[in-house]
Amino acid sequence: MPEPPEQLKRLLVNVDRVAPEDELAERLAEGRPLRVKLGLDPTAPSVTLGWAVVLRKLRHFQELGHTAVLIVGDFTAQVGDPSLMAETRRRLTAEEVRGYAESVLGGFSRILLPDPLEIRWNSEWLASMDMEHILELSSATTVAQMLERADFAERMAEQRPISVLEFLYPLLQGYDSVAVEADVELGGSDQLWNLLMGRTVQQRYGMRPQVAMTMPLLLGTDGVNKMSQSLDNYVAVDDAPADMFGKVMSIPDDLMPQWYRLATELPAEESEAVISGVAEGSVHPAEAKRRLGREVVRLYWDDEEAVEAEAAFDRVFRDRKSPEEVPDHALREADPVHLPGVLLDAGLVTSTSEARRLIAQGAVKLDGARLTEEDVPRASLLGALIQVGKRRFVRFV
Amino acid sequence: MPEPPEQLKRLLVNVDRVAPEDELAERLAEGRPLRVKLGLDPTAPSVTLGWAVVLRKLRHFQELGHTAVLIVGDFTAQVGDPSLMAETRRRLTAEEVRGYAESVLGGFSRILLPDPLEIRWNSEWLASMDMEHILELSSATTVAQMLERADFAERMAEQRPISVLEFLYPLLQGYDSVAVEADVELGGSDQLWNLLMGRTVQQRYGMRPQVAMTMPLLLGTDGVNKMSQSLDNYVAVDDAPADMFGKVMSIPDDLMPQWYRLATELPAEESEAVISGVAEGSVHPAEAKRRLGREVVRLYWDDEEAVEAEAAFDRVFRDRKSPEEVPDHALREADPVHLPGVLLDAGLVTSTSEARRLIAQGAVKLDGARLTEEDVPRASLLGALIQVGKRRFVRFV
Repeated sequence: MPEPPEQLKRLLVNVDRVAPEDELAERLAEGRPLRVKLGLDPTAPSVTLGWAVVLRKLRHFQELGHTAVLIVGDFTAQVGDPSLMAETRRRLTAEEVRGYAESVLGGFSRILLPDPLEIRWNSEWLASMDMEHILELSSATTVAQMLERADFAERMAEQRPISVLEFLYPLLQGYDSVAVEADVELGGSDQLWNLLMGRTVQQRYGMRPQVAMTMPLLLGTDGVNKMSQSLDNYVAVDDAPADMFGKVMSIPDDLMPQWYRLATELPAEESEAVISGVAEGSVHPAEAKRRLGREVVRLYWDDEEAVEAEAAFDRVFRDRKSPEEVPDHALREADPVHLPGVLLDAGLVTSTSEARRLIAQGAVKLDGARLTEEDVPRASLLGALIQVGKRRFVRFV
Repeated sequence: MPEPPEQLKRLLVNVDRVAPEDELAERLAEGRPLRVKLGLDPTAPSVTLGWAVVLRKLRHFQELGHTAVLIVGDFTAQVGDPSLMAETRRRLTAEEVRGYAESVLGGFSRILLPDPLEIRWNSEWLASMDMEHILELSSATTVAQMLERADFAERMAEQRPISVLEFLYPLLQGYDSVAVEADVELGGSDQLWNLLMGRTVQQRYGMRPQVAMTMPLLLGTDGVNKMSQSLDNYVAVDDAPADMFGKVMSIPDDLMPQWYRLATELPAEESEAVISGVAEGSVHPAEAKRRLGREVVRLYWDDEEAVEAEAAFDRVFRDRKSPEEVPDHALREADPVHLPGVLLDAGLVTSTSEARRLIAQGAVKLDGARLTEEDVPRASLLGALIQVGKRRFVRFV
């Protein structure tokens, strides 16, 4: 383990807030492995580059010998609010939650070290919590403190309903910090209030309160909104290399400084050199973006895949050729073939309605020519290259 | 059972609010015995004349064949809030709660019919309620609805803390209405919001919501505040006849109209005749108050006790004599006698500190003469009449 001041320096890179500021240094000075909590809400399948900003910080802790404690919020994710559907997320089944959790943990394993790592499911302590305990927990904080949370304050101001149930979620998630005895909790900068609630709950149970550490939010490929799966402006850490590279190439130029700093592991000096080079005109933005694309692919795949992803990108977009390695897909027995169904079978779309919309928009091509019909003679599909949008290809056999 | 319109007429006497107004008539028209809920919080031992206003209404329902459903809030009374001691009531032990509940139910039995009557303890359904059920329950209402409750609104405005726990109490008590399938819930007029919460919770569980019926609040003997045990401005339904009569005689004259209407069972015409007689000067206020005293004693004891209580009152206050029947109390062996201890033994005070305070105030008399010392020669006490305050007497033997 490096000396505490050296650890602190490494851990504070790119950090948005440490609250309270001095307590992280105090804990590091104790010289023991800290327990660093990260909660994950298994309500969507992918791990995005936005999430990875926090995960890579967690990995930095691991590299210094501290324990990553992942809390899978399986219990909280299963509790929906049928009376307030429009305002809150829907209730997920246990199977959906498990599916998402496994998928997300798979993504995490691309970033975190396998050790020291603890994975805990919060149903372990929440599902069996009894009435008396819940009432005790709910006495940890006040209504006024709850209403300081930005989204609650906004909804009260706009007279949109907040279910009393929603006041219990932050307490339950705060209790996770008690259950795992967290020293530090990590999150995005929009999670600061929640992380501080963990402190409040720990204090209620007579425990030394954790340090809250937040990371900046990465903007999505649209350059406007926080990266999120529901807005479909994301890059997932397990996206195929070519897809990953292509998505990075699609971001607006002015997003590059943030992505260089938060989405790569380039040393700060190198990132800043590229960023200022672009600003001064000595580096071409397209070149800078290609390098960004390679750095991102390198991080989640390897050097070779990065080079190959760039070459594949060039074949399709610069040289206007089809990609070299197009997957084959066995065409279903039918003539004519109903294209929305086979596009779904082939995994090129997520629903037949998406397929129909793309066909209507002229975004589906057969050997480079736009398709306008949903039903296509089988003979014209066999052996042909099908392209959906810019980057999805398949060859029917 | 009388016809529904006749029932309605009898039930609406003295009522403050029925909400929603038309639904009581609808339920009565169904011709079945209604389930009429009354919650009791076992946090104090006595049943006051204030409480009796609501209880007598419940008895009217019983007399018409409807079922009185008493909910003993044993579970809710046991949950305290250690973090907000100053704001909320302290946590009671199971034994204290049971003791208060038994004492209160004893008082109730002076008013209610033994049948049709159901007594339910809410720990039956609340103690075993699991996390998922509690979260479901908490989704029944919104933060905004909670903050409409007068005391919460006040505390928010004054920036005094409200624990999140306090948001759960009304939901738990509302769930009592689900558990017992209440048709109607009774309460004091300050309980209207709580009774309507019962409706909200029943609706959340797909149940037809109860009718809320509130009774006016009886002012205490001070003529200023709501009658309450914590303010010691109350008459208990099991006070001894002489004590009961004496307390009624101590109320301010302007309180008589309210007490005639709410604290007696005199027919409305008779009450109004006395009230207007006093207003017009044809009835002397002191005579009106004596009659009020007799009516109250008659209600909880009988005619004979009422007459005797008035006579005892006259001997002490009008004729300045000691009461005829003074209980004997065997003096403990000691010389000199420490008076605070024996006053406590004799049940004239509730603590030795109260005794010391009363002695210091000159409120303790030995054969009519003020005592100023706490230690008194045994000989001067034996056979003597001891008077504490206006109405407490004992003879030491």
